[in-house]
Amino acid sequence: DTKKKNRSSLLSLIIIKKGTYDTKQLIHSIKVGIALALVSLLYLVEPLFDQVGENAMWAIMTVVVVFEFFAGATLSKGLNRGMGTVLGGLLGCLAAMLAQEVGGTARAATVGTSVFIFGAAATYFRLVPSIKKKYDYGVLIFILTFNLVVVSGLRGEQTVVLARERLATIVIGFVICMLTSLLIFPMWASDELHCSTVTKFNNLATSIEGCLEVYFKTMDENNKSRASNISDGYMSVLHSKSKDDNLANFAKWEPWHGKFGFNHPWDKYLYIGDLLRELATSIISLKGCLQSPPQPSMPLRLSIKDPCEAVSSFLVSTLRELGDSIMNMRRSRPGAVIIVKLQSTRLELREAISALGTVNGDGLATVSFVFLLME
Amino acid sequence: DTKKKNRSSLLSLIIIKKGTYDTKQLIHSIKVGIALALVSLLYLVEPLFDQVGENAMWAIMTVVVVFEFFAGATLSKGLNRGMGTVLGGLLGCLAAMLAQEVGGTARAATVGTSVFIFGAAATYFRLVPSIKKKYDYGVLIFILTFNLVVVSGLRGEQTVVLARERLATIVIGFVICMLTSLLIFPMWASDELHCSTVTKFNNLATSIEGCLEVYFKTMDENNKSRASNISDGYMSVLHSKSKDDNLANFAKWEPWHGKFGFNHPWDKYLYIGDLLRELATSIISLKGCLQSPPQPSMPLRLSIKDPCEAVSSFLVSTLRELGDSIMNMRRSRPGAVIIVKLQSTRLELREAISALGTVNGDGLATVSFVFLLME
Repeated sequence: DTKKKNRSSLLSLIIIKKGTYDTKQLIHSIKVGIALALVSLLYLVEPLFDQVGENAMWAIMTVVVVFEFFAGATLSKGLNRGMGTVLGGLLGCLAAMLAQEVGGTARAATVGTSVFIFGAAATYFRLVPSIKKKYDYGVLIFILTFNLVVVSGLRGEQTVVLARERLATIVIGFVICMLTSLLIFPMWASDELHCSTVTKFNNLATSIEGCLEVYFKTMDENNKSRASNISDGYMSVLHSKSKDDNLANFAKWEPWHGKFGFNHPWDKYLYIGDLLRELATSIISLKGCLQSPPQPSMPLRLSIKDPCEAVSSFLVSTLRELGDSIMNMRRSRPGAVIIVKLQSTRLELREAISALGTVNGDGLATVSFVFLLME
Repeated sequence: DTKKKNRSSLLSLIIIKKGTYDTKQLIHSIKVGIALALVSLLYLVEPLFDQVGENAMWAIMTVVVVFEFFAGATLSKGLNRGMGTVLGGLLGCLAAMLAQEVGGTARAATVGTSVFIFGAAATYFRLVPSIKKKYDYGVLIFILTFNLVVVSGLRGEQTVVLARERLATIVIGFVICMLTSLLIFPMWASDELHCSTVTKFNNLATSIEGCLEVYFKTMDENNKSRASNISDGYMSVLHSKSKDDNLANFAKWEPWHGKFGFNHPWDKYLYIGDLLRELATSIISLKGCLQSPPQPSMPLRLSIKDPCEAVSSFLVSTLRELGDSIMNMRRSRPGAVIIVKLQSTRLELREAISALGTVNGDGLATVSFVFLLME
């Protein structure tokens, strides 16, 4: 009965979670629609069009390409685009002037060579991992702008005027993006990273609980299906690395808002994430012990039940507590206190040394590491 | 002495590997430069420019944006761009005609509404995970083209002609991309996925070897520094999931080449990758046992040395063999034979049951699972 209740509450939790995620997606879509409609006004309203002319195209392009799900991502892409355009435009103008000076048939050759050299150099630059992570899009736009400016300069148009007008429309597009992104229900990558870290603590706590439950009850009930339910929790923790990296990257761009100040320590979130992933691997090996065929007999198992449950319930409650304290950004109990308590329970367990004991001890070693960090 | 030799050979291996990677990056950069210079000819050569006019801009844009490191990625992005442009252009023309029919002041309102509706709907569509994975870029281009076509249609230009000309230049840009990407030293995502799978087998084999070595020798030499060298191998395996997913996604787009036919089973690579990641978690827990403080005494350790080494050397050689057989695409020894042999060595080990034995047995359980797959 309670199990059914548990499962249905879990199910409703998932639906709510999916629900909020869907709502977020819906809001994001509507925001994009609004931004597009706003930027189309540049074409639709006669006086505005007279001002910007065909260059309004670049504003539309900017909105379509730059508007991302998270506010930080939009901001970073927009700034990258701006920097890339300015740099590419300046260098392009210089190269175009140089080609003009050379004159004659050598002009086309000069332009072609500069396109080749700058294109290749910037592409190589783009493949450097640290550049790729933060400025990939900026370098792309740099290549694009440089090429467009340098070749159209050859056609004898007023390159500088053209470049300035395009930059102006790009800025218009960017401003529209930022206003819609920040003023209408902003989605913060920082909130997402914060919440997902807390969820990780809870997931791992649930997984540890589940493992212990299965270990001490399976033999009389023999329903292995629940074990697979547990695995979702720690598997999602284990494979969260690249997602976390992205979120932290965006979060660093986001301005001050809510409870996060400037210089919020986002790198610490990544570090905590790494430690939690380590803990997740320990849980996997714990689960591996549950599933391996040579199981100890029931009496042996029962003899270690009490200390094991003491350790695990302490672990679970500490994980939940740490998750809560991160959620509310309170300082948790000093790490030293927790570690002393942990070591005493661990000592109890070592007295009942056994196969399970060793692996559990391994999990504990990792956890104490987590706690050391929390100080 | 041999250790020094080992380390220097490892170092040279890394340098060679970094060297080949750098060469690849250099080649890629030069290829991009060539493609850009080629596409600039549209501007530079008078007769060509007379044909395409200002629309040559779109060809440059296509080359800059579509050219990616792997051939499969370039192909998928190019096809996405093509599909997005065609679909967006068609729907944009329809919407523009509709607005023309409505006429009067309602025209601007019709255009604005259609921009909002299509923009929001396509953005929502884009956030669906399965669409995002494969057609993200196509939908982006769809939104862009639709908007540009529908608003410029309002300006009373010959929308259809404009759209057709732009499409033609985009096709030119795409053809230049594909020619440079496929004809000059092509980089195949399929090769990369294939080799990285083989490297994973070797990395794990080396890690297992290293763990055993440390366990049975540390106490008299006490150099823990080597242990951290081992960890690079399995950590890179553990965090390879999202990279593998991307590579498999690109590899599916790549045409027949070398030893890979159409319908090469790329999904099986992902499955093998999953199993190897599972094995990596077992190795992590094995290493956890090595590091946890309550170590068994040296005599106890020596008593289990022989069966442990038998198991591990068998494991290592089998992993290497499997890696080789994937490398050369030969069929390996039937899985059943391997498993029988594995179980007999495992039985030996169980006789010397101990803490280490249990965890090793856990690793074996996973490996036998890998072997089952290989049949």
